[in-house]
Amino acid sequence: MEIIRIPRIMREITKDLRAKGKSIGFVPTMGALHEGHLSLIKRAKQENDTTVVSIFVNPTQFAPGEDYEKYPRDIESDKEKLQKMEIDYLFLPDVESLYPQGYSTYVTVEGLSDKLCGKFRPGHFRGVATIVCKLFNIVRPSRAYFGQKDYQQSLIIKRMIDDLNFDIEIIVCPTIRENDGLAMSSRNLYLNEEERKAASVIYKALQEGEKLLKQGINPSDVTLEMLKILKKEPLVREIQYAGVFDPLTLEEVKEKQKRYLLAIALKIGDTRLIDNFIVELN
Amino acid sequence: MEIIRIPRIMREITKDLRAKGKSIGFVPTMGALHEGHLSLIKRAKQENDTTVVSIFVNPTQFAPGEDYEKYPRDIESDKEKLQKMEIDYLFLPDVESLYPQGYSTYVTVEGLSDKLCGKFRPGHFRGVATIVCKLFNIVRPSRAYFGQKDYQQSLIIKRMIDDLNFDIEIIVCPTIRENDGLAMSSRNLYLNEEERKAASVIYKALQEGEKLLKQGINPSDVTLEMLKILKKEPLVREIQYAGVFDPLTLEEVKEKQKRYLLAIALKIGDTRLIDNFIVELN
Repeated sequence: MEIIRIPRIMREITKDLRAKGKSIGFVPTMGALHEGHLSLIKRAKQENDTTVVSIFVNPTQFAPGEDYEKYPRDIESDKEKLQKMEIDYLFLPDVESLYPQGYSTYVTVEGLSDKLCGKFRPGHFRGVATIVCKLFNIVRPSRAYFGQKDYQQSLIIKRMIDDLNFDIEIIVCPTIRENDGLAMSSRNLYLNEEERKAASVIYKALQEGEKLLKQGINPSDVTLEMLKILKKEPLVREIQYAGVFDPLTLEEVKEKQKRYLLAIALKIGDTRLIDNFIVELN
Repeated sequence: MEIIRIPRIMREITKDLRAKGKSIGFVPTMGALHEGHLSLIKRAKQENDTTVVSIFVNPTQFAPGEDYEKYPRDIESDKEKLQKMEIDYLFLPDVESLYPQGYSTYVTVEGLSDKLCGKFRPGHFRGVATIVCKLFNIVRPSRAYFGQKDYQQSLIIKRMIDDLNFDIEIIVCPTIRENDGLAMSSRNLYLNEEERKAASVIYKALQEGEKLLKQGINPSDVTLEMLKILKKEPLVREIQYAGVFDPLTLEEVKEKQKRYLLAIALKIGDTRLIDNFIVELN
């Protein structure tokens, strides 16, 4: 595994690889790697000649007052994991090299970015679209891998790819879960023992939602049932959204349809957690 | 010369060329080609294995109430000119293929986009940055060619290239002028005979500004002199800006420095015209 820190050098390396006809699989991360990340990397390795993983805690996607400063960083442990997985390149740029003095260009995906998480994290998806656009121009992968857990993010990135005519295939991989169903997330590290136990209520609410939708219950009633489950957990401090949404527009769904997005964002203590299911009826 | 209308096909063609190690020179235009465009194309041909010219009147860079509908379009004459120049590919997409239903991604270069022309053409540079980003992803040129006449545009595109880590060299070519100094522009076609004559006042004011700066006159006084010259021309209807600016920040310059941007935007009749000089003191 080679570690590259300079964007220009990373760009030259992948340019050479492309010239040699090699396919490039890319997994952009913010580090603090868990099984979810590793599943993306495994898939990237299977499907491409070369695998590039980036670790960069992107400041522009944190809203003011969010956890940019305290976001978990454990680069030594990350490096070990990546080395074990035998990836080809770890791209590890610093903030100054990606956002130098005078930086002023931003990419916005209108509409989708204001829904769900966007309502509670102003500027978040602008930061995501911008850094992903930058990383895509540096790595120019054949395929890029994202987790289903960040469903809205993957939807926005797909929209950006199509709109800006990038020649990259976006692959969204299933959410990896703990034994009690909690979606793997670097932010789970923030939870104390009690909070960690309480956090499984998110998965329970999603499961119940799925069951009810499959029983033909009306989406509005399903949303109510999910909220009821979440509210019963005393450590749930703030439900930002929870219920049944349209998987393409992210609008709340009140009438029956064929595909649904069940999605939840809430705080347990100071920790913001999200999760979702896609439910498809036959 | 091959004419390509489908973005995906254009992207495949240039991808194949790159894989064969060919350099690609790209000249994006809105058509109604004049000697200014042709000089860019000539340079692109000299410096690259393959030359791609695009013609696309980009709706997103026209502010509401501007001349999008009546912008000069003469595709048959353009094709003839390009054929004579023996370019390799004319990329001729339609609006629906570049901005399909549901399109929602925009690229913004903050700061620079609000100065000079940006003050009078809200959204203009967002439209420019967006379409150039799209075209760059489709063509992925080695080098792209722009005219010095649109100085602010070239500055914004260079900023975007650096900020978004595009691997493209931006080449800005000198403004081509009519005999009386008027900068070539597709919009000159809007001028009637009398207006056409009056339009040379822009060049006169720039020349006078340059002379005075070189004589060591203070920039504020140079601006006043330029305005005086423009105001003497009765057909000048609205001076949007005119004077001495900083070539990097586009801010008005009041104290002496080494490099200046002399820039003018005004209306003659209903026609908006722009021009500029870069003045460098030894």
